[in-house]
Amino acid sequence: MADLGADVIKIEPPGRGDPVRTWGMQVDGQSLWWSIHGRNKRSVTINMRHPDARAMVLELAAHVDVVVENYRPGQLEKWGLAPADFEAANPSLVLVRISGYGQTGPEASRSGFGVIGEAKGGVRHLTGYPPEVSDLPPVRNGIAIGDDVSGFYGAIGALAGVIEQRASGAKSLKLIDVALGESVMTLLEGQLPEYGKLGIVRQPTGSWVSSAAPSNAYKSSDGAWVLVAGNSDPLFKSLCEIMGQPELATDPRFKNNQVRCENVIELDRLIGQWVGSLTADEALEKLDEVNIPSSKIYTIADIAADEQYRARKMVTEVEDPHFGTVLHPGVVPVVAGLDRDAQIRWTGPDIGEHTDEVLAEVLGLDEDAIAQRRSSGLV
Amino acid sequence: MADLGADVIKIEPPGRGDPVRTWGMQVDGQSLWWSIHGRNKRSVTINMRHPDARAMVLELAAHVDVVVENYRPGQLEKWGLAPADFEAANPSLVLVRISGYGQTGPEASRSGFGVIGEAKGGVRHLTGYPPEVSDLPPVRNGIAIGDDVSGFYGAIGALAGVIEQRASGAKSLKLIDVALGESVMTLLEGQLPEYGKLGIVRQPTGSWVSSAAPSNAYKSSDGAWVLVAGNSDPLFKSLCEIMGQPELATDPRFKNNQVRCENVIELDRLIGQWVGSLTADEALEKLDEVNIPSSKIYTIADIAADEQYRARKMVTEVEDPHFGTVLHPGVVPVVAGLDRDAQIRWTGPDIGEHTDEVLAEVLGLDEDAIAQRRSSGLV
Repeated sequence: MADLGADVIKIEPPGRGDPVRTWGMQVDGQSLWWSIHGRNKRSVTINMRHPDARAMVLELAAHVDVVVENYRPGQLEKWGLAPADFEAANPSLVLVRISGYGQTGPEASRSGFGVIGEAKGGVRHLTGYPPEVSDLPPVRNGIAIGDDVSGFYGAIGALAGVIEQRASGAKSLKLIDVALGESVMTLLEGQLPEYGKLGIVRQPTGSWVSSAAPSNAYKSSDGAWVLVAGNSDPLFKSLCEIMGQPELATDPRFKNNQVRCENVIELDRLIGQWVGSLTADEALEKLDEVNIPSSKIYTIADIAADEQYRARKMVTEVEDPHFGTVLHPGVVPVVAGLDRDAQIRWTGPDIGEHTDEVLAEVLGLDEDAIAQRRSSGLV
Repeated sequence: MADLGADVIKIEPPGRGDPVRTWGMQVDGQSLWWSIHGRNKRSVTINMRHPDARAMVLELAAHVDVVVENYRPGQLEKWGLAPADFEAANPSLVLVRISGYGQTGPEASRSGFGVIGEAKGGVRHLTGYPPEVSDLPPVRNGIAIGDDVSGFYGAIGALAGVIEQRASGAKSLKLIDVALGESVMTLLEGQLPEYGKLGIVRQPTGSWVSSAAPSNAYKSSDGAWVLVAGNSDPLFKSLCEIMGQPELATDPRFKNNQVRCENVIELDRLIGQWVGSLTADEALEKLDEVNIPSSKIYTIADIAADEQYRARKMVTEVEDPHFGTVLHPGVVPVVAGLDRDAQIRWTGPDIGEHTDEVLAEVLGLDEDAIAQRRSSGLV
């Protein structure tokens, strides 16, 4: 939302700030991730243990459209910041609460962890090899998909809530309750009715597609993985030709998709041999010539070098006061007509960098009042 | 957006409708997935090959806030439906365009495939085992994460666009350009600046966390995978106690996180042996007693039986005219005070089920005008 132009005020504890500031690789004690994670946000400190913290949070809440929080359910209430308190301060507020299990139900008060939400949301089970291929456990995504999807639903709830509050002139707080596992569970397509009606429990299919062959990743001579999806009969014929083995297209083991699926291990071995005899670039050039959907599995180095990403400024160089020039991803989605670089107004701010500015602009405090809050340890 | 109360009108070709209607498992020729995928949406048919199709699309566009399309870039323009045409019909429209590579740049006109967007977005590379553990290619997620994330950004762009159009009273169309690979790339955390500044290319770490041990999945005696995250020293001590091997906590190979990471293969073997001697329920009960974060890796059967999901109506029974009672996921995010069941107003509609209704209500056509459009083959 900050990337799209919203004024996002991040509240942090004075001193160490948000723990996310220490995540990932550091340069001189500064996190490179924070340069992105904090960008376009204003940082304001509040010491939640100070007796005036509650009043200051509600004072800020009176001036905004949306408050987002992700404490364990009950924590805000302990601080005297229940939904009713926010509603008294700002009756048209949208309050977005993100938690592991949601604000209600028998497990509401349990801590939420991304990796457990992904497991309970049913995605982890599918992210692995079937037991007949490997006995290794299902892999992690390597990214925080549970946190990401909860964040997306939080943003959607916030924006939809603002539209509804403004359209209806509603005078009561709208509470949006996002649960991590539930968010992940929405990605499961038709699995719930398929299980309920037919008893089907979907199983992981590794790196291939169980109903279409060939469609897999194969290692090139220079150690990259190349995706090849040549599973229609005409595409398979083209593939056999560029492999120099046109006879495979009419081979009884491979002549149509059904038999190809039955003989997929041998088929994948043959394609793997061919891809393995070429560099990734060589293989992709040949596949592209005959329009077989294909791609290298990109590492971050491939992403940084990709022409399309560069042309659209999805990979772009940004000046960060701590690091000098750093690579950032562009703002997604693209809003046509806006300069994608200019949308990155600033990189991750220092702790409390905008405290004075926000207290003056948003709360209308003068220098003395700000100094008093600072000297009392509130900010 | 339909789940949250928006009036979503899905345009489909007459006859066969949207191909997604045939995806997943079928009962009597009806897709169970469609029961969810199409829910709360109105279905209207338009034959895009009919000479009056363009006029009818623009007529509808004049009455809505947002148009969403995901054709290959250039297709709408071929039909005379460029952004300028939509703008002439409705100057305050938000037009969301979802594609593989985006509307601009050297690769804009290429077809987009979810699996290729995931590969180019850098997530597939991380979803696998490191080469020293397994030579199998990185796995698929088992879900359509690329399409999902693009959809989230499309919804966020649509909602943010509506807020801005209404707030500014803008009289020009807002074009939101969502690219599949770019959407996926936003999930890569700090990888881009870490690569640019330090040359680090992040590699997959399989099922564990490279910097914390133990944190992995272990197979129970009844064949389920159990996640165990006992990587702080106090949690590890508790784990050794419930394993009946308290001496491991002070073993020089395991006495702190650093040496545990160095000896993780032996450590995982020992924990695997212990989990493997118990059913998943037995292991989880013991882990829960000493507050070690843990979970079964849920299959859809576990999800359907989960008490928290049932208590919050995240797993709920819905009446579908084609199937009778079917399991649906609840609406995410939860809007407090709304009945989650009542939010599912109807299940996936038949092809063109709402054509007459929409032509009458939205376009104000009378019965004769509707009949004329039908007999000419337009709808």
